[in-house]
Amino acid sequence: MNFKELVKSNRSYRRYDEEYNLKREDLEYFIDLARMTASAANRQPLKYYLANDKETNEKVFETLSWAGYIEDWDEPKKGERPSGYIVILGDKTISKNYFCDPGITAQTILLGARDKELGGCIFAAINKKKLRENLNLPNKFEILYVISLGKPVEKVVLEDMNNNDIKYWRDEKQIHHVPKRGLKEIIIN
Amino acid sequence: MNFKELVKSNRSYRRYDEEYNLKREDLEYFIDLARMTASAANRQPLKYYLANDKETNEKVFETLSWAGYIEDWDEPKKGERPSGYIVILGDKTISKNYFCDPGITAQTILLGARDKELGGCIFAAINKKKLRENLNLPNKFEILYVISLGKPVEKVVLEDMNNNDIKYWRDEKQIHHVPKRGLKEIIIN
Repeated sequence: MNFKELVKSNRSYRRYDEEYNLKREDLEYFIDLARMTASAANRQPLKYYLANDKETNEKVFETLSWAGYIEDWDEPKKGERPSGYIVILGDKTISKNYFCDPGITAQTILLGARDKELGGCIFAAINKKKLRENLNLPNKFEILYVISLGKPVEKVVLEDMNNNDIKYWRDEKQIHHVPKRGLKEIIIN
Repeated sequence: MNFKELVKSNRSYRRYDEEYNLKREDLEYFIDLARMTASAANRQPLKYYLANDKETNEKVFETLSWAGYIEDWDEPKKGERPSGYIVILGDKTISKNYFCDPGITAQTILLGARDKELGGCIFAAINKKKLRENLNLPNKFEILYVISLGKPVEKVVLEDMNNNDIKYWRDEKQIHHVPKRGLKEIIIN
């Protein structure tokens, strides 16, 4: 798979084969990729909490809001949930402004996962108070994003956006369609 | 080059072969990669201004602050400047919160550039007022980041961080050294 194919195949996957065993060493490999990325003024304020056992996964899962635009589907059912999570934290003792570091590391983790035939999704809609309690996260860490990870069992396709309609949708075969703006719309000169 | 090698070789390059001809179609290819990435609630509020001619490059160049930690070097000299730039803009008429979208697209663009044996650097330290004037950017666009791009002519190496010293440095051979935190420091559990 060339790089463009990798980027294109790296969709936001929300249904997984929950039986897939995501190993701690796989998660550490992804963090090692994140560790090597650029960081604003090289401060490297991001820290990571890893989850890959059933009990901890459940503690993360219950704090996430899934796929806001799909009205008849609240969350993946049992058996289709992620095999693990990476919680991206900002260490406030290092910096209180993370610039674009979280996106850099999240995308690197997800491309790395896709390269291993896994997939994931970035969550910003998190019950952060509950997640902090559930994982016993010290206050010096700001909860920024959660990445779910697993073996995807859904098909996600990109399509051209019409009428400025940004809502992704699922068809009757449960294929997930994501409208994207065209190049001419996003390049302004 | 496998994905891990790609990530590792994707350093913040600040000196380039300025004679290298970065084509408009190369820049559009990178934006096409960025276009296909995940976006918070799929809003896709990011827009892009592309520069690859000498006159426009100079208009961007003069607004950037280079390598804060290297005290005896202010900026790349003539002949070592970037062959082009991508200005990442937030379209405030679409959203005023860009979440981690800018980092996602910036990293995707830079990995795509590296995959083509090019390289770049992300700038947050920008004279935004001057850049807006120089490029005549409408006020509906918030200037977020600038990515410089070109054919790198410098060597950048990663090394383990000691004593919490985040400052990158150059040795007598002008090799650029970047200290990175270890895995055990950034994984908190």
